[in-house]
Amino acid sequence: MAAARNPKTMAAILPTITSPRDLQGLSSEQLEALAGEMRRALCEVAATRTAHFASNLGVVELCLALHRVFDFSRDRLIWDTGHQIYPHKLITGRFAQFGTIRTRGGLMGYPNPEESPYDLFMTGHAGCSVSTALGLASGDSLCGEDNRHSVAVIGDGALPSGIVFEALNNAGFLKKRLLVILNDNRMSICPRVGALAEYLDIVRTNSWYRGIKQQAGEIIKGVPVVGEQMERMITGVKDSIKNSLHGGALFEALGVRYFGPVEGHSLPNLIRYLELVKDEEGPILLHVLTEKGHGFKPAEADPVFFHTPAPFECDDEDGIVTVKKSSARAYTDVAAAAIATALRQNPRVTVITAAMCQGNKLEKVRAEFPDRFFDVGICESHAVAFAAGQAKAGCRPIVDIYSTFLQRSYDQIFQEVSLQNLPVVFMLDRAGLTGPDGPTHHGSYDLGYLRLFPNLTVLAPGDEHDLVTMVEWALKQNGPVAIRYPKTTADNHPLPRSPLAMGGSETLVEGNDGLVIACGTLLGEALEAAATLREEGLELTVINARFVKPLDDRLKDRVEAAAWTLTIEENTLPTGFGSGVLELVCDAGIHHGPIRRLGLPDRFVEHGERSELLASLGLDATGIADACRQLAGRSPAPSIPHAAAHD
Amino acid sequence: MAAARNPKTMAAILPTITSPRDLQGLSSEQLEALAGEMRRALCEVAATRTAHFASNLGVVELCLALHRVFDFSRDRLIWDTGHQIYPHKLITGRFAQFGTIRTRGGLMGYPNPEESPYDLFMTGHAGCSVSTALGLASGDSLCGEDNRHSVAVIGDGALPSGIVFEALNNAGFLKKRLLVILNDNRMSICPRVGALAEYLDIVRTNSWYRGIKQQAGEIIKGVPVVGEQMERMITGVKDSIKNSLHGGALFEALGVRYFGPVEGHSLPNLIRYLELVKDEEGPILLHVLTEKGHGFKPAEADPVFFHTPAPFECDDEDGIVTVKKSSARAYTDVAAAAIATALRQNPRVTVITAAMCQGNKLEKVRAEFPDRFFDVGICESHAVAFAAGQAKAGCRPIVDIYSTFLQRSYDQIFQEVSLQNLPVVFMLDRAGLTGPDGPTHHGSYDLGYLRLFPNLTVLAPGDEHDLVTMVEWALKQNGPVAIRYPKTTADNHPLPRSPLAMGGSETLVEGNDGLVIACGTLLGEALEAAATLREEGLELTVINARFVKPLDDRLKDRVEAAAWTLTIEENTLPTGFGSGVLELVCDAGIHHGPIRRLGLPDRFVEHGERSELLASLGLDATGIADACRQLAGRSPAPSIPHAAAHD
Repeated sequence: MAAARNPKTMAAILPTITSPRDLQGLSSEQLEALAGEMRRALCEVAATRTAHFASNLGVVELCLALHRVFDFSRDRLIWDTGHQIYPHKLITGRFAQFGTIRTRGGLMGYPNPEESPYDLFMTGHAGCSVSTALGLASGDSLCGEDNRHSVAVIGDGALPSGIVFEALNNAGFLKKRLLVILNDNRMSICPRVGALAEYLDIVRTNSWYRGIKQQAGEIIKGVPVVGEQMERMITGVKDSIKNSLHGGALFEALGVRYFGPVEGHSLPNLIRYLELVKDEEGPILLHVLTEKGHGFKPAEADPVFFHTPAPFECDDEDGIVTVKKSSARAYTDVAAAAIATALRQNPRVTVITAAMCQGNKLEKVRAEFPDRFFDVGICESHAVAFAAGQAKAGCRPIVDIYSTFLQRSYDQIFQEVSLQNLPVVFMLDRAGLTGPDGPTHHGSYDLGYLRLFPNLTVLAPGDEHDLVTMVEWALKQNGPVAIRYPKTTADNHPLPRSPLAMGGSETLVEGNDGLVIACGTLLGEALEAAATLREEGLELTVINARFVKPLDDRLKDRVEAAAWTLTIEENTLPTGFGSGVLELVCDAGIHHGPIRRLGLPDRFVEHGERSELLASLGLDATGIADACRQLAGRSPAPSIPHAAAHD
Repeated sequence: MAAARNPKTMAAILPTITSPRDLQGLSSEQLEALAGEMRRALCEVAATRTAHFASNLGVVELCLALHRVFDFSRDRLIWDTGHQIYPHKLITGRFAQFGTIRTRGGLMGYPNPEESPYDLFMTGHAGCSVSTALGLASGDSLCGEDNRHSVAVIGDGALPSGIVFEALNNAGFLKKRLLVILNDNRMSICPRVGALAEYLDIVRTNSWYRGIKQQAGEIIKGVPVVGEQMERMITGVKDSIKNSLHGGALFEALGVRYFGPVEGHSLPNLIRYLELVKDEEGPILLHVLTEKGHGFKPAEADPVFFHTPAPFECDDEDGIVTVKKSSARAYTDVAAAAIATALRQNPRVTVITAAMCQGNKLEKVRAEFPDRFFDVGICESHAVAFAAGQAKAGCRPIVDIYSTFLQRSYDQIFQEVSLQNLPVVFMLDRAGLTGPDGPTHHGSYDLGYLRLFPNLTVLAPGDEHDLVTMVEWALKQNGPVAIRYPKTTADNHPLPRSPLAMGGSETLVEGNDGLVIACGTLLGEALEAAATLREEGLELTVINARFVKPLDDRLKDRVEAAAWTLTIEENTLPTGFGSGVLELVCDAGIHHGPIRRLGLPDRFVEHGERSELLASLGLDATGIADACRQLAGRSPAPSIPHAAAHD
């Protein structure tokens, strides 16, 4: 497919779309052509950098139809999750900047209200769209703006999230006008799981849909838009649905009128159905069938890989793809291997993921241990409570969830796990800055939000060695343990190591000029900074904290003895690791020199490469060395350009 | 009703039930008599102290039938929420201690694994039972214990909680044997709301149920238990359900087989239905209809009041009740009045509760502003995301949720509110120790779990004056604001007050011998301690912090100038208010005297009266004065008995 190599030469209409209003003048043929141009623009970006791809290919027609039928300069549109936002960005005045997406200073890969008034919420966690869209409808109504429409587009992967049902339950009760579009592509990132998935599969193949699919085109063409005949058809359909178990009865039971399923790659079809339901009263769910990766054959064939593919090349017009594979071993790989080892060694170990089998690299574990691998869908709350039940029964569950998504199970970590003191192991992948996904995905808060619970042990491995050891160690404890590690290549520090013991840090480098206590992810940067400073004659002690809770009690003696102390963490500073060190020192009532805390600032950090972001925040080796020099009363950093410290 | 006055004389069977095994020898008549004795025991407790009452009256037969049919020394039983646990406690060896329930050192008012192996999870937050029961079933199976049954009893109030759907979705997929009993009494604490409630109302009155209700008794009596005829009946019923929209299709769509509805106050009926479904494969939902308050007429007539009534008297055999009304004005009353004022002043203000209209004293607000009052049911996640939508549309939503339950919306506070910087006002009632409910309900963590989010302002009123001012102030801000206040009588400090300003504390007492910074709820105790110490010649400065985030920057100058500093908070110490003060002081790099932090310890605090618990933790005026004397190098506290400091 040449598109990925040279797409802009082929875009004729897309550059002219400066706002969705420009869609109104286009003919059907032009809209179809525009869809093709949009797909080529998506291919171009995905070929050059890791970006959300297959899901965006699947919603091109839906996006065009929505903007054609509604006026989202007034009406309300929420994409859930937000990684389906690319086509929307292309036609809401951001085509020119589209090549910057997911780069620092460029467009965000999720909706961003600061970029465009067409983006209402920065949506990176799945399932909240029905709630926010209902809130918008309710708020607009109270503000006297009843004529605004409110639309939520939610994927079938996000549908099982509990909050969706909470919202549908409320919507069916409030009876406000609300359009929920179920974008059903039969996928989460991995193939979807759960009873709802099976239910949607039955709905998808029900007789009404099979019959209508062929006829819909002609029927629709034969009547005036929103004509009487169409309404009769829909009414008839609704009755037949009501008589069938599998025709949206699930939604109807919640007071939400169900329409569909509707073919999601036919623009005229989508436009006419949207016009039909647009002014209906009360909450409506329109079930739209799309194909993830639609229009780009390799992505259609392997939508899991092409969810966020590594950069690729197209070597001919057939779109055959050569993938540039990364050879670096990430912490995620290390964690997956450690989990596999644990499952092999102990038949009571289980692993639970919330639809992140691929992201957590658990495919091999799933294949090897199908009976002890549980993908519960995007249902983090259930994942943790379910794990608590397994632990109570004598199993050793490992809950493998990204740091940012674990916030979804916050109350279950408290109530079902910590309060019961059950031996659940939490693996928090993507802790710290996750890079191009940005603030919805950075794992910036876990050290604080976890260390406040009694009974919970919180670990931060300093390298691969630590991570492997910690998984093994955690599974031997009698209470809950959380282990947080970053989204980056795994380090291994070639230094003599201490055995892991409850509440024990390890000293990796000894020096008398200052004390650096590094918490997990930034240990490597701290060691690099210490090596640099040693050459400058500044000899520092570098401690690998390992435990965030309980903190090593001996650290207070270290702080007491040190000329100054620097704590380092890839976590927000309020409530974080350094804050824990301050608590320890305060409670000990010792005298100590200056203490400085390095960490993430108390603001939302933008998207960009992790290394770029760390450098900009003074959290790379250069920044750490600067902080040490300052504490030591040395001159500021030598004038080496900032970027030189990175490779 | 004499029961409430002198019940033990009437209990003949209950004292002989030392474990559920003792139920097996009882005749039907004896079981019925036992049910009566259990109700009298419930009445006796509820008459003497505030306790969960009406819900427990409603599950007496269900509890007996469950323990008769299952063997929960091996089988698994979760009550959701746990406040329905009283009958279960009465027949699992705890009748003798039953009079101690909800008192310090006595039985807990929720399940407690430390009390009995029959209590598996301490369940105080609604909706997790299906998840944990499914986890238990899964774990038992993996541990080779397939013959254990797993049962979750969930109220219709808890049913709309998103996690229930997440769990049903997973259960329908895993297809493990699991019995979910829907205890449908048509109530949350208040009458239930939401589309699901309307759905259950239709199910309740469907033709099958109306027909069967009369016949069930005879049919069941006429066949051997679990006989062929019965099975045919059930099969037929199931088919008819499948052909109807309103017969459990909602659950069947999730892969969960639906049985019911079943009359929940007929013991023989319940026992036979439970035996029928006991060994069915796969997940089953049995819909049981009960009456909240059943068997005690005043509670049947007003189940809202009798959910957790104040102590009452029964003046004759008809059970007519004189309620001892409390005249004290609680912070909850102050908050409700402030909310009402705000709604009157600004037509864009809305208020959102998650089924806690009564607990938050919002009945008057609901009556006066039906269009701007939103009870979303026990759906805290949706409540917050819905509020975010309203705020985005230009409203000023107030989310009124207990501190402990707000943990349910943790991710929405992050993602939908703080990240978007939307002006949602969070009212955190029951912050700090809530008293007799115990650790599931104490609001012990909010200062830490909230102050780590950017954009969020966190306020802790020092008294009624502050709370009223803060609600008004919060509604004028352009970003999110959280206000946390305790479950206790409102204080009012008769001292000159400073106007409330962003990030501003106020100094209430000046003294040169030491600095006390009080955060919210314990300001009164701090002032009392300071007054006592002044008489001893120790002159302290007492500051009302007001802001937890942003902290008053001037506090660092105060700390720098002070001989010593004491911070006081009714929140866990790790990550809390004092920790924030340490961060401020550390970042300022100032020299300072000793700092000590008083607050809740890093363990789960038991149940008991709030004043008892505070005293035991050194957080009353006596304890605070002791801490100050120690910091000032004075002799320890004069030997006044601890309790003397309280009234």
